[in-house]
Amino acid sequence: MFEIGQGCEVSRRGFLGKSGLVVAAVGVAAASSGVLGLASRAEAKDTGYGKWPYKKLNPDEVAKIAYENYFDLWCASTVLGGLFTPLKQSVGGPYKSFPIESIRWAHGGLAGWGTVCGTLVGSGTAIGLITGDIDTAEAMTNDLMFYYAETVLPVYTPAKAMKAEIKHKTKADSPVCHISVGKWMQAEGAAFLTAERAERCARVSASIAMKTAEMLNAWADSGGKYTPVHKPLANVLNNGITSQNNCTDCHGVSVPPVPGAKK
Amino acid sequence: MFEIGQGCEVSRRGFLGKSGLVVAAVGVAAASSGVLGLASRAEAKDTGYGKWPYKKLNPDEVAKIAYENYFDLWCASTVLGGLFTPLKQSVGGPYKSFPIESIRWAHGGLAGWGTVCGTLVGSGTAIGLITGDIDTAEAMTNDLMFYYAETVLPVYTPAKAMKAEIKHKTKADSPVCHISVGKWMQAEGAAFLTAERAERCARVSASIAMKTAEMLNAWADSGGKYTPVHKPLANVLNNGITSQNNCTDCHGVSVPPVPGAKK
Repeated sequence: MFEIGQGCEVSRRGFLGKSGLVVAAVGVAAASSGVLGLASRAEAKDTGYGKWPYKKLNPDEVAKIAYENYFDLWCASTVLGGLFTPLKQSVGGPYKSFPIESIRWAHGGLAGWGTVCGTLVGSGTAIGLITGDIDTAEAMTNDLMFYYAETVLPVYTPAKAMKAEIKHKTKADSPVCHISVGKWMQAEGAAFLTAERAERCARVSASIAMKTAEMLNAWADSGGKYTPVHKPLANVLNNGITSQNNCTDCHGVSVPPVPGAKK
Repeated sequence: MFEIGQGCEVSRRGFLGKSGLVVAAVGVAAASSGVLGLASRAEAKDTGYGKWPYKKLNPDEVAKIAYENYFDLWCASTVLGGLFTPLKQSVGGPYKSFPIESIRWAHGGLAGWGTVCGTLVGSGTAIGLITGDIDTAEAMTNDLMFYYAETVLPVYTPAKAMKAEIKHKTKADSPVCHISVGKWMQAEGAAFLTAERAERCARVSASIAMKTAEMLNAWADSGGKYTPVHKPLANVLNNGITSQNNCTDCHGVSVPPVPGAKK
């Protein structure tokens, strides 16, 4: 039913670099429902979905807005603001009345709990509203999670640093705030409550906002037919649970068996 | 500057049961920005925030709606739908035009990656829009994260199961999808792609939607002056990084030092 080349023993680099491209045809969209197959757009209840018109964004402008507003809005909201602020001008409509600061709680892995990086909640919110299609939003969000995990961040460098100069860029191998920030802190030798760490997260926010704008532009160029880069993680079919596949990073050498997991 | 009774060696139960009540006066809101102090409502840019009127919800009705729509919408969107569907009728206005399925990508810890439970993204989205205040949303979301981690879930039991009967309830000690689902699967002996697991997540969604309605009602009863149950996690001041404090659960007995962490 599926083909996947690596198990829990592989390195994160090995997994993230490859298995995202060879996972199952049965997608992650099936994971949470326990029901195979994707619900079609037509099956979704009509709540005005698909009524957020899109005009192509300038990724550099998006990044700059996200960077400059990070220190007030923090990761999730500043990414959303980077994307929506130009659209308020070019499109207006629903973008004018959506309060971007309403998702600031998603900073720091949700109120500082260190779970998923808030930038991905900001981007996901924008992607979900703009694409107006649950399957497209799913695929694009999944690709963005891969991008975040696999990319040496931050990509964005401001013309002039607002808070501090920083020396290091790091690859998280994970979309998790705690891991992403922690690896950069180790490399930089900087504590959390420093101008350097804030500067880094501002630049990461700009990087993710920029990438999201590029993905949305590609989607618009293709007439709303998004072509996924990665197939769904679908580790659920390998490990039997929603996760990445780098189990030993958290569990150590002994990975607890999960009911139904493939051997 | 702060007082906290436990370090990384404590059990999750010990930590979550106590230290959330004794953490620093300097809150988690400072964590992501690197800047101490909370930005006031007045400092936030005016983007129409605070214009989502609230009328008290019937928590039982909210839970029932969230439960019954889970199998189409999945965790994040069905929680949002449980809260917004009654408000569309009682308030109308912005609730009528917000597409609840636009956050379905947050299921399964964001597109199945197993990070934060999607219910908390659904609740956070509602809390952020309804409260219209970044500090209130921060505090309420933080309390909800504690509730999720500390509560034996699911609390909600339907009059008639839609997919399957289930036997077990579990406490996650974490807001993370992978951990929460995994502990329940171990207890139930059920695999991920089963009707039982889907039933469990539907009931958890109903439970979190219900709790969120109760919190919003309490906030409304007090005239919009929310009284936090927990102080911010603020582990950042203990471990020096956004996280819970149960470090060894993921790191094993050896916790990597973090620059700036307290000894």
